[in-house]
Amino acid sequence: MEDKAQIQEAIKVQGEVVRKLKSEKASKEQIDEEVAKLLELKARLGGGDDGKHQFVLKTPKETLTGKYGEDSKLIYDLKDQGGELLSLRYDLTVPFARYLAMNKITNIKRYHIAKVYRRDNPAMTRGRYREFYQCDFDIAGQYDAMIPDAECLKIVHEILSELELGDFRIKVNDRRILDGMFAVCGVPDDKFRTICSTVDKLDKLPWQEVRKEMVDEKGLSEEAADQIGEYVSLHGGMDLAERLLQDPRMSQSKQACAGLSDIKLLFSYMQLFQVTDKVVFDLSLARGLDYYTGVIYEAVLTQAGVAPVALASNDAQNGSEESVSVGSVAGGGRYDGLVGMFDPKNRKVPCVGVSIGIERIFSIMEQRAEAAAEKVRTTEVQVLVASAQKNLLEERLRLVTELWNAGIKAEVMYKKNPKLLSQLQLCEEMGIPLVAILGEQELKDGVVKLRVVVSREEVDVPRSDLITEIKRRTSDA
Amino acid sequence: MEDKAQIQEAIKVQGEVVRKLKSEKASKEQIDEEVAKLLELKARLGGGDDGKHQFVLKTPKETLTGKYGEDSKLIYDLKDQGGELLSLRYDLTVPFARYLAMNKITNIKRYHIAKVYRRDNPAMTRGRYREFYQCDFDIAGQYDAMIPDAECLKIVHEILSELELGDFRIKVNDRRILDGMFAVCGVPDDKFRTICSTVDKLDKLPWQEVRKEMVDEKGLSEEAADQIGEYVSLHGGMDLAERLLQDPRMSQSKQACAGLSDIKLLFSYMQLFQVTDKVVFDLSLARGLDYYTGVIYEAVLTQAGVAPVALASNDAQNGSEESVSVGSVAGGGRYDGLVGMFDPKNRKVPCVGVSIGIERIFSIMEQRAEAAAEKVRTTEVQVLVASAQKNLLEERLRLVTELWNAGIKAEVMYKKNPKLLSQLQLCEEMGIPLVAILGEQELKDGVVKLRVVVSREEVDVPRSDLITEIKRRTSDA
Repeated sequence: MEDKAQIQEAIKVQGEVVRKLKSEKASKEQIDEEVAKLLELKARLGGGDDGKHQFVLKTPKETLTGKYGEDSKLIYDLKDQGGELLSLRYDLTVPFARYLAMNKITNIKRYHIAKVYRRDNPAMTRGRYREFYQCDFDIAGQYDAMIPDAECLKIVHEILSELELGDFRIKVNDRRILDGMFAVCGVPDDKFRTICSTVDKLDKLPWQEVRKEMVDEKGLSEEAADQIGEYVSLHGGMDLAERLLQDPRMSQSKQACAGLSDIKLLFSYMQLFQVTDKVVFDLSLARGLDYYTGVIYEAVLTQAGVAPVALASNDAQNGSEESVSVGSVAGGGRYDGLVGMFDPKNRKVPCVGVSIGIERIFSIMEQRAEAAAEKVRTTEVQVLVASAQKNLLEERLRLVTELWNAGIKAEVMYKKNPKLLSQLQLCEEMGIPLVAILGEQELKDGVVKLRVVVSREEVDVPRSDLITEIKRRTSDA
Repeated sequence: MEDKAQIQEAIKVQGEVVRKLKSEKASKEQIDEEVAKLLELKARLGGGDDGKHQFVLKTPKETLTGKYGEDSKLIYDLKDQGGELLSLRYDLTVPFARYLAMNKITNIKRYHIAKVYRRDNPAMTRGRYREFYQCDFDIAGQYDAMIPDAECLKIVHEILSELELGDFRIKVNDRRILDGMFAVCGVPDDKFRTICSTVDKLDKLPWQEVRKEMVDEKGLSEEAADQIGEYVSLHGGMDLAERLLQDPRMSQSKQACAGLSDIKLLFSYMQLFQVTDKVVFDLSLARGLDYYTGVIYEAVLTQAGVAPVALASNDAQNGSEESVSVGSVAGGGRYDGLVGMFDPKNRKVPCVGVSIGIERIFSIMEQRAEAAAEKVRTTEVQVLVASAQKNLLEERLRLVTELWNAGIKAEVMYKKNPKLLSQLQLCEEMGIPLVAILGEQELKDGVVKLRVVVSREEVDVPRSDLITEIKRRTSDA
């Protein structure tokens, strides 16, 4: 335990720094950085009894700051009524970690489908929007190594297989292997994160451009860049992990070795889960987000027509939209430190999770359905209640009420006196399989004429048997 | 068709007004008002070929302005990258109307469950949040009077009945009856909307306070206020509509008569739909939103403990939270003008809809479950794959893969060597009904020991029959 008074003093000073920067209207990046430091100090202070300086965790305030590295510029900001800085959530992972910390939950497994927001340049056909759904699955808790991690990959494999999106590849790497690799290649400690986000661009840019950014923009030595270049061209399976554990340079990094051993373990579990056919250990996979601490992974579709746009520039200036190029469709990894960042006593809850890009997946599925000229029914209506003559609106409403009350999906046209023909046309358009037709004669006889739209077959069904008959015919279909 | 050049000139002038107000940092209300006028002018201009002045409908821009009357202050604003004024959606109705106009859809029936945002004072136990889900159902299209309106009320009735939330009441009124009533009571034309939002407070405030606001704050004459007071105390059924059609004052208003005739028609359809037991024609129901043009309705729970907080102040100063007081749980009405406001040619699409307060409903259901000490299962796991001895992790992973691949909801503990007891305890905690136990003997014999958690019964099942056996036992449950 650190000296409380000392931290409290540091918080006071840091608070002044933040206030000063805000009053001077300093850049957002600068303020964010200092707020993150303040947050860390508050976290270190712990829970203690002296309420005055206690770290009060509020749902929106400061939560997103300092979690996303260079992606932070994509966070949507807005202002609270009290003038505090607020943001729209950037993903579901940080809010999940905040939720665990606030509710002192130490283990949970859950999925969450909800909207997230990015100040990105939208590209509709690529399925990239400013407001979009994410679908996350996470396992939180202190467990034996790599078992939940392997389950996450099993789930990605299962989803992408069952949706029949064509062939796919799941790339796997480990943040510790990347960090170890950077260290043995001679990247200075303070450049790990920024070089990591440059490596992350390898799925969109060729190595030469990535190398140029490292050397020209990030100031890395050419020698270090070339050494990185050799490693990031490697991909394979458990054998590659084995080989790298023997690599004279790589094996010097304890971190890298820990990562490589875990990759081996992960592959052994993945074999049992029957997913290794699609998984590749790929040293070029980086993922830009700061919060990952261990295994990372990303799934891409590899079939012609839906492959990621290799070499396409992704910057805000490039407004052109490619058809069916959707990039990665799932990604995630292990983030053991994030929950602790929100906990006043810095209690860690190890987590691993995956985010499914459902909007991207939907845009592919839609384009496929369109290409195949499939007619997709947009409603589940089982029967239209229709009339053969005029002045039967009341009878139609009475009958549809009977059907609704019995749990049958039924519709009537909202017209007093619709023509029978237009009622039958509506069924064709909407793909409604049955029509329950009322006429003077049917009412007199206590029957309903049930018509099968496709075959045009018609039978008179006693009113009392109608519900059973509709249920029988629609459960057959 | 109006003179185009004239409107274009007016747009130019109005554009200047808006720019000037913005540069002078005028109040938001003032700017909103002028932007709304600009929008109206642009809409009147129509589609023409002279692209220069065409009204370009963009998804977020200006969409929310001038639709919500006095509730506008609750809209969450933020800024676009281009500095344009943006807002988080306040409800699902305005975005729905915008969607119809942009996609030239003239008839549709759909439901939509999504988040909306209000700068309101949150009250957790009352189920009132700044970010919350709404669940909307709307019918758009040119149909015969009151048929879709009656269906909306049938749906509210069905939802509230099936959720077993206790007794409820659906209040119905018509914006035209309110406007007609204001006219015959001597309310000046330009005060209709503001007096309407004062009447809207009658579900929370007693008449005396509402009257005070009308007279002292809104400057209405005492005589007019008292005449309104007489009408808004009335409630009944079809008979009340009939009586008011004969009322010497009310019958002078053509608008009111149109509304009253439609209320009669609505009640006749509701009788056929079997919902009149819960519906009451209530002249005090106003609903503050500007966009309603015809029938309006609101559902409230009436059972003790969940009744709306009568007389409780709802203002931002009042931070106290009542338990299980949730106010209205559904509301809506007819809005025939809203789509036209977004259409460059002002083409109208009549709409009627209802919004279900699902968060409020959930908070009631949760509190009820808590009060009844019901234990709600949070997962649907059917079977835990467990081991009786050490070193069987691989076997457990192999078996759980078999079950997953067969579509069975199965789990394993993420431990290399968990104790059998802790595996059985997990089943108790999570309510998992079955355990598939592997041990050295079972593996040798090619069986799995299937244990029923509740009865502690155990049977050895041949491995090849396990999936069928689990399916049989869990479909029974």
